Parts: sequence; structure tokens; C-alpha cells
Amino acid sequence: MPGIHRLRNFVQSMTRLADRSPSEAEWLEEGGALLKSLIAHDDWLPEDLAKPGPTYRQYLLHCDPLERFSVVSFVWGIGQRTPVHNHKVWGLVGMLWGAEVSTTMHPVPGQPMRAGQVDHLSPGEVVGVGSGEDDAHWVTNALTDSASISIHVYGGNIGAISRHTFDPETSEAKPFISGYTNTVVPNLWDRSAEPAVMS
Amino acid sequence: MPGIHRLRNFVQSMTRLADRSPSEAEWLEEGGALLKSLIAHDDWLPEDLAKPGPTYRQYLLHCDPLERFSVVSFVWGIGQRTPVHNHKVWGLVGMLWGAEVSTTMHPVPGQPMRAGQVDHLSPGEVVGVGSGEDDAHWVTNALTDSASISIHVYGGNIGAISRHTFDPETSEAKPFISGYTNTVVPNLWDRSAEPAVMS
Ligand SMILES: [Fe+3]
Ligand SMILES: [Fe+3]
Ligand SMILES: [Mg+2]
Repeated sequence: MPGIHRLRNFVQSMTRLADRSPSEAEWLEEGGALLKSLIAHDDWLPEDLAKPGPTYRQYLLHCDPLERFSVVSFVWGIGQRTPVHNHKVWGLVGMLWGAEVSTTMHPVPGQPMRAGQVDHLSPGEVVGVGSGEDDAHWVTNALTDSASISIHVYGGNIGAISRHTFDPETSEAKPFISGYTNTVVPNLWDRSAEPAVMS
Repeated sequence: MPGIHRLRNFVQSMTRLADRSPSEAEWLEEGGALLKSLIAHDDWLPEDLAKPGPTYRQYLLHCDPLERFSVVSFVWGIGQRTPVHNHKVWGLVGMLWGAEVSTTMHPVPGQPMRAGQVDHLSPGEVVGVGSGEDDAHWVTNALTDSASISIHVYGGNIGAISRHTFDPETSEAKPFISGYTNTVVPNLWDRSAEPAVMS
């Protein structure tokens, strides 16, 4: 994609941020601003990592080598949604194409979960979520006629973190390690075809 | 590949080394020991990054996000060789499968280059090269009946560095940015299928 340097620049800025050992509030504020710039353009996401599949896709775009953060493309086909799940780490969600709806869910031991805040996300918008324990939610494509794509950033290697899904009828938690949909990630480092100005 | 954790562990150890801002001698000594461990097994290189092509392949395996080092799989088909070239940064070469021969070449302005040291590399061997100016060489597959593969580590994003190839007949230098053969690199970060012991 012609704009692949945007993703490379984002990864480099996030790495420099990580090297300063920021507080969670700093991660969310400074990382959120960087994510907002990234999703202000849509010419950088490689096609293979923008494709819907039989269930929602979670394509790793970049994982920090020390697993301090990860960047993931979530692709929602028509009618697709996540289970109710938690994260254990801070998260940032930026809407690239289409729209999604996130619904916070509070567990009530032995009983149905209680729905909380409902967030609608439109292209260009970014929301941050802290690493608090009570952060279960489910996310769904808000469009009924096309795929939607959001770019997520997490405070760890999200595909490898031991976390939980929840049964919304009983609030029962089950262990969950999401993994990733993709076995290869974009090569951001071949600058040989790019004008020097994009460095 | 079952041993992909070996490459992930190598990348993490090299990243921690980079974070200590080592001298070139430390890079070569400590990085060389890490590379020797990596190439002691051959169960970790993804198949797609071990395939020969019509010319020698330079598959990026990992680039440090701050471009302090890169890890590349060089695959030599039968009869394949590089042009005479320099590097501008330190390098480490570890032989994974097969064998290669590297010949140092000294430019002599307006005249044929003068051949210097000849190094034969066998599986499990690692050699280091400093970043001195006088480091032009050419490398060839030493096997006449099969492909050979070596794993290279460089003190920068080697595919993006402005360096030179040389005409061996005239010692004339030409600008050279190698790029990489591959547009995608392995996803090292999906631990969901691995026993916890490999972390
Ligand atoms: Fe989530
Ligand atoms: Fe070389
Ligand atoms: Mg030898």
C-alpha cells in the first residue's frame, strides 16, 4: 500500500513512547493521539489484512518485540460480533472504515450480566479503555450492508494474554487466549521503493 | 514451524542487547553467541522464507522497530551469488543449511579489484564483520547440488541502507539499496498454540 510508511512511523513513535515507560494515562493520551493520526488516512492497511472472513478477523499488524504493546486490525463482516470478553491491559480503538458498537458488560455472579455503557464509533474516532478489572464488553459491526474495520492498540501482546470470555446468561468466566488470525505480518521495513521524504 | 519460539527468543534477546547501546565489539561478541544458539537448530525457519528463487533471496525475518538491527535469511540456489557489495554497518553471518564462500574484495581505483580473504562457512558456524569502509565482498553458494541458507544480522535496517555494489573489473562503485524479497514477515507473537514452557 502506498501509505505503509504511516504504519511504520506509528510503530516507531509508539516504540519511543514505550521506551519512556509511560504511565497508563500517558499511554492512553499520547498513544491515542498517535492512533488518531494513523487512522486519519486509509491508504496504508495492506489488503490481506482488511479482508473479512467467516468470523471476525484479528490480524496482528505489529507486536513490540518486548511485548509492551501490540497493534491489531479487527475486521467485522456483516452480522459479526465478539463474545463478551475482557482484556487485562489498556486498550485503544480507532475506527478506520465503517462503524462498530461496543457494549460494556458487568458480571453478576450466577446471574445474567448487566449491560453498561454503549459506545458508537465512527471513522476517525478513537476511544481508550483502562486496564481495570471491570472492563468486559462485546463489540459488533454497526453496518448491516458492509464490513467495518477498527485498529486496536493494547498494552501487551493481546493475542497471547490469558484473559476471559463470559457467558452473558450466567456471568460465568472461561479462560481465553485469542491468538491471531494471521501467520505473517506486513514487512514495514523495505524503504527501497519509497521517496526519501517518507523516512 | 514448531521452533518459531527460537526466533522470537533471539529477537527478544537482541532487542535487550540493543537497549544497552553496546559497542560494535559487544554487538559482534554477544550477538554472535546468540546467533550461534539460534542456528544450532533448523526447525524454526518458516518454509516460505527458505525457498530459493530465480536469483538469491534476501528474506527479512525481523527488523528492530528503531532500525538498530535486522535479521535476514539469505537463500542461495544452485550457482547463485551476490554482486561485489559493501554494508556500512557491522554484520554477523550464521550458516544454517549447506555452505557458502565469501571473498573479500579491495577496490583499486580504475583497475580490477584485488581479492582478499576467502571464508568457507559450514553449518553451525558464525562469522562477524566490522563496519569498516573496506568490507566489500561477494558471496556464493558453495554447494553445486542444492540450495544453501545463511542467517544474517546487521547493525541497521540493511534493506534500506544506502551502500554500494562494485564492478570487479574497474573497482567502480554504484549506489545500491537492496530492499527485501518478501512483503510479509513471520508472525512470531501468536503463542496460543505453544506450551507455556516455550515462553
Ligand atoms: Fe475488546
Ligand atoms: Fe554481504
Ligand atoms: Mg570455515
